[in-house]
Amino acid sequence: MRTMLLAASAALALSLPLAAQDEPPSSSEAVGQTKTPAPAPAEIVAAAPKADWVTIPAEELLVMTLAPDAEGKPRQVVIQLMPAPFSQGWIHNIKLFARAKWFDNISVNRVQDNYVTQWGDLNYDNPEAKGKPKPLPEGLKVMTEAEYTADMPFRSLSTGFKGSRKDPYAEEAAFSGGFPVAFRFYPPPPGAKLSEFATSSWPTHCYGMVGVGRNYSPDTGSGAELYTVIGHAPRHLDRNIALVGRVIEGMQFLSSLPRGSGDLGFYTEAEAAKRTPILTVRVASDLPAGEQPKFEYLSTESQAFATYADAIANRRDPFFIVPAGGADICNIKVPVRRVVEAN
Amino acid sequence: MRTMLLAASAALALSLPLAAQDEPPSSSEAVGQTKTPAPAPAEIVAAAPKADWVTIPAEELLVMTLAPDAEGKPRQVVIQLMPAPFSQGWIHNIKLFARAKWFDNISVNRVQDNYVTQWGDLNYDNPEAKGKPKPLPEGLKVMTEAEYTADMPFRSLSTGFKGSRKDPYAEEAAFSGGFPVAFRFYPPPPGAKLSEFATSSWPTHCYGMVGVGRNYSPDTGSGAELYTVIGHAPRHLDRNIALVGRVIEGMQFLSSLPRGSGDLGFYTEAEAAKRTPILTVRVASDLPAGEQPKFEYLSTESQAFATYADAIANRRDPFFIVPAGGADICNIKVPVRRVVEAN
Repeated sequence: MRTMLLAASAALALSLPLAAQDEPPSSSEAVGQTKTPAPAPAEIVAAAPKADWVTIPAEELLVMTLAPDAEGKPRQVVIQLMPAPFSQGWIHNIKLFARAKWFDNISVNRVQDNYVTQWGDLNYDNPEAKGKPKPLPEGLKVMTEAEYTADMPFRSLSTGFKGSRKDPYAEEAAFSGGFPVAFRFYPPPPGAKLSEFATSSWPTHCYGMVGVGRNYSPDTGSGAELYTVIGHAPRHLDRNIALVGRVIEGMQFLSSLPRGSGDLGFYTEAEAAKRTPILTVRVASDLPAGEQPKFEYLSTESQAFATYADAIANRRDPFFIVPAGGADICNIKVPVRRVVEAN
Repeated sequence: MRTMLLAASAALALSLPLAAQDEPPSSSEAVGQTKTPAPAPAEIVAAAPKADWVTIPAEELLVMTLAPDAEGKPRQVVIQLMPAPFSQGWIHNIKLFARAKWFDNISVNRVQDNYVTQWGDLNYDNPEAKGKPKPLPEGLKVMTEAEYTADMPFRSLSTGFKGSRKDPYAEEAAFSGGFPVAFRFYPPPPGAKLSEFATSSWPTHCYGMVGVGRNYSPDTGSGAELYTVIGHAPRHLDRNIALVGRVIEGMQFLSSLPRGSGDLGFYTEAEAAKRTPILTVRVASDLPAGEQPKFEYLSTESQAFATYADAIANRRDPFFIVPAGGADICNIKVPVRRVVEAN
């Protein structure tokens, strides 16, 4: 199937999922290539030493089970919560909601194209609620704007990364603890190293990141209502809405839902049937050991990650005519993979 | 419905569609706002003088009719083709394909999450084709890499735009003829004004842009196989694949399709039923006058557009705590609206 193969090989050199990128161009396609193909980013990831992969603690994974699809196939979404110090107050609340089973039997209420998919309880904080609001769990924290930012160590990508990483939204965009983060610098103390710069930092609204719906400040949202980005990164939301994690599996179950026809993509009452039921949301560590999904991410501090990011910014693998010579922080997707244990 | 309204108002201040943004926050929500709200970007667009809107010629519109959805509702996609000098060779071919009805009864064959939706004829250039390839129309042009770039006048956004517009992929990203464009500068002739700089320029892979699937260079694709971006802008494709236009209506019919489970999001034979049929593709000017859709875009040379872009980069409307102080070229969406004529 020449067209398909070639179309495939075109994207092959370009895109996640890794499973696809791991497949090298077929020999027939390699014909005509005048030089040894440079490794594609996914090939670099596949070759990364095991030691460069960081296990995600089960305590930092949320397992969200949607109702089965129209064909009766199960739909499970796994969300990786952000590590400290980011957004820990909201994450505390989200775990309380999950452990109180407060998230059970809620629904996806809004899908706005090139923006967000949002889910929650239609009876929550809603004077027009048709049903009875669930009692809120004890111990919810109330967050303030101050918690939108935090001082963080960071990886600037200056090691091994060639090319532009200009960011329209910050002085620096890099990675910290496996997540994309933007930074503002403050004057360094005399004689300080770059790594000792005082910074303000915040996670960035990339595709698949999960955030907290909120009211006007200073109420910054409890974590009861969440959304994920299903389009181009709405970076203007950075520092304005708290990000608590990212979808690491099952994203397609949230991104391919029918868009709502109401304002902002909310489903109207007439299309209430399109609201996808969310059956359960569990912290992975609360599941029976045998049911706990296990994931690991490629350390953003590793040389393999720097090489991967450099390859994304300077594609030299087949198909490319002109390497970009730079990369947008949201296009350097942190590799995450499921750990399948041998029996 | 407080939560819904508030959630709505949050997004209200942020996102397309314009219809949603045109709706101001309700008075109850305005309570507690300490200053007069600054206009949201969509409010600036709504207030733009009629003279700032540019009619898109029917010759530059493609009308693609998909099979009705599962509920029997029609699905029509409208694509605005790029104006000269960009990609005119491919656009010539695409009009030939459309006028030869060559695109009729093709299908969407690939949907890869956070990447592209791609459509074409499964029998085209395909040794494993089950059906007979359609004869190609006469007069197809063969493009070369040189046609990936062109010298263009451009708007730098320096007028009225405050804040960072750093671009990781080019020396400058701006707008030209209503489309997002990236630029490389060459030394200006002695005494030249900025506007007289010699530049190389190319359209950018933003959400909804439509491109031409291709083989390895120097074969750069005929236009028979097209895709649109359904995720974060894959800007590394800029200058590597030709862009020919953008989806201006019906994008949700392409972005919310089920993702393919094959490599790269291609539908497998087992899920062939998921391939959405494309019934017809017509150049709007070939339709009966009464059936020709009419659209206009906000001139990217207008002061209203500069004010709109500045408002996106520096949100001061309700809900925002911290204006971004800059904007990514793909987040400054060129306003396009359907012209509804009074009867």
